[in-house]
Amino acid sequence: MSFSTLKNPHLSEMKTDYLYHLNIDVTDTQNTSDIQQRFGDIKVICAGGTAQRMRDLAIYLQPIFGITGKPVDLCESGHRYAVFKVGQVLCVSHGVGSSTFSVVLHELLKLVRYAKCKDPVFVRIGTCGGLGIEPGTVVVSKDAYNGYLENVHEIPILGKRVERPASFPQDIIDDILKFGAQSNDGFAIISANTMSTDCFYEGQGRTDGAVCEYTDEDKMNFLKKAYGKGIRNIEMEATMFSSLTQLAGVKAASICVALINRLNGDQVSITMEQKKEFEQRPFVVVERYIKHLLNK
Amino acid sequence: MSFSTLKNPHLSEMKTDYLYHLNIDVTDTQNTSDIQQRFGDIKVICAGGTAQRMRDLAIYLQPIFGITGKPVDLCESGHRYAVFKVGQVLCVSHGVGSSTFSVVLHELLKLVRYAKCKDPVFVRIGTCGGLGIEPGTVVVSKDAYNGYLENVHEIPILGKRVERPASFPQDIIDDILKFGAQSNDGFAIISANTMSTDCFYEGQGRTDGAVCEYTDEDKMNFLKKAYGKGIRNIEMEATMFSSLTQLAGVKAASICVALINRLNGDQVSITMEQKKEFEQRPFVVVERYIKHLLNK
Repeated sequence: MSFSTLKNPHLSEMKTDYLYHLNIDVTDTQNTSDIQQRFGDIKVICAGGTAQRMRDLAIYLQPIFGITGKPVDLCESGHRYAVFKVGQVLCVSHGVGSSTFSVVLHELLKLVRYAKCKDPVFVRIGTCGGLGIEPGTVVVSKDAYNGYLENVHEIPILGKRVERPASFPQDIIDDILKFGAQSNDGFAIISANTMSTDCFYEGQGRTDGAVCEYTDEDKMNFLKKAYGKGIRNIEMEATMFSSLTQLAGVKAASICVALINRLNGDQVSITMEQKKEFEQRPFVVVERYIKHLLNK
Repeated sequence: MSFSTLKNPHLSEMKTDYLYHLNIDVTDTQNTSDIQQRFGDIKVICAGGTAQRMRDLAIYLQPIFGITGKPVDLCESGHRYAVFKVGQVLCVSHGVGSSTFSVVLHELLKLVRYAKCKDPVFVRIGTCGGLGIEPGTVVVSKDAYNGYLENVHEIPILGKRVERPASFPQDIIDDILKFGAQSNDGFAIISANTMSTDCFYEGQGRTDGAVCEYTDEDKMNFLKKAYGKGIRNIEMEATMFSSLTQLAGVKAASICVALINRLNGDQVSITMEQKKEFEQRPFVVVERYIKHLLNK
């Protein structure tokens, strides 16, 4: 990835840039040596929903780099996203869903550009609903479907409906499955299609939101139709994430653990202990994948 | 607002409910006396982007109720949204954009239902981009437009495109302008239409994102078209927020301060001190409006 690959010709005309939501000032876009010094060694950007989980991940990854101590939130002053740097990995919180993730993703893509990072890989680590799979299964996303069950990211740009491809690169999926999983892990890891919606309740066919205007039968028909398209998990980010990274020319992957099998119900009913254990599984997988990447 | 007004017949069939992202357990939906005791007195739910701003708002509102001390985050264990209760007001962080806000809004609507709150008013307090208005202007939203410049909230439900009305009730707007503003405040407050998008960069016609496939001229044409529809501010929540509250049968309002005039540029360039002062303005307005509501 180089200066020329980000698909925005306007950036080369900007003398300064302010990554507003990260509160990072790029005072001279032609000389970004300070940004390069701070972030230039980054190989992997891990993004996940909550600040706490990303802090936990940073701590979990510290031994790879022989680092100890309390991770420092580099963007605390921005008040919106938590950013921890552990060796060559950046761990960033993105909040719930595409709207909040897309904001920080645009700014992270510009950050790795200004920092002149070499072939950075973006990996989302998260939780999701499963579709016909056991809770606790880890899903590495392949094609990402929107709430219309279409394998595209739909976005209004200048008032027009734009549809963009939304798939994750197969070579990264293969590497994650090959190097991230071990046969004695005690949990299943699969590659499958993912549905993303902007609404957790109505968008995902739940009947337990504040509003619901369909029947249980309608809902089950929808979920089965999704299953028929090879969709095995449902979350709120993969279509936007795969689409924007694809367009920006960077590699990306999504590794999520299912907390529930939506064919059996809507409410998350596992215990807090189970949830904690399940949430650890993508950590285990991504840690091994990162080690593989660094040793290449 | 009563049990019957939330538009979801399934809720009355649920014996228990778990407000997952708030980590609030409703152990018996037929007997919610504990929830009523904790939240039943709530008249106003203020929601805003960051946890810190909502904490600041809680502190700002304390004198109304003669309360002092450090506000406690009631939903810290959920790790996603911060919730502070100050007297009859709940101050809740919703993150950036509709995806994250809709999740907590569904759960808050169910919470006030279980708590049997009487006619609660939901008020979003935020920052936004302005359109043809001076930075620092406070905008009370009227009709909410999506990124296609349509005055509807578009949402995929069970794979189908659903369009819902997206306007804020005029009586609340009138009250906020009448009781929230004072002639010597030193800033303008207006009622106008609002555009909301799920993407801060391409969705709002910015040219400074990681990706941009249009020209400055295209962008200005789009912004002028929006201006022609009476849109004076742009943010990421109003269409979903007005639509879902309208459908759920609760009153709502959006009070946002503009940090920038988008007709003059894309980057936020005010100082941190100015930003702090601007962000205080919706606090001033909502505090007076809340006092009015409580004295009614």
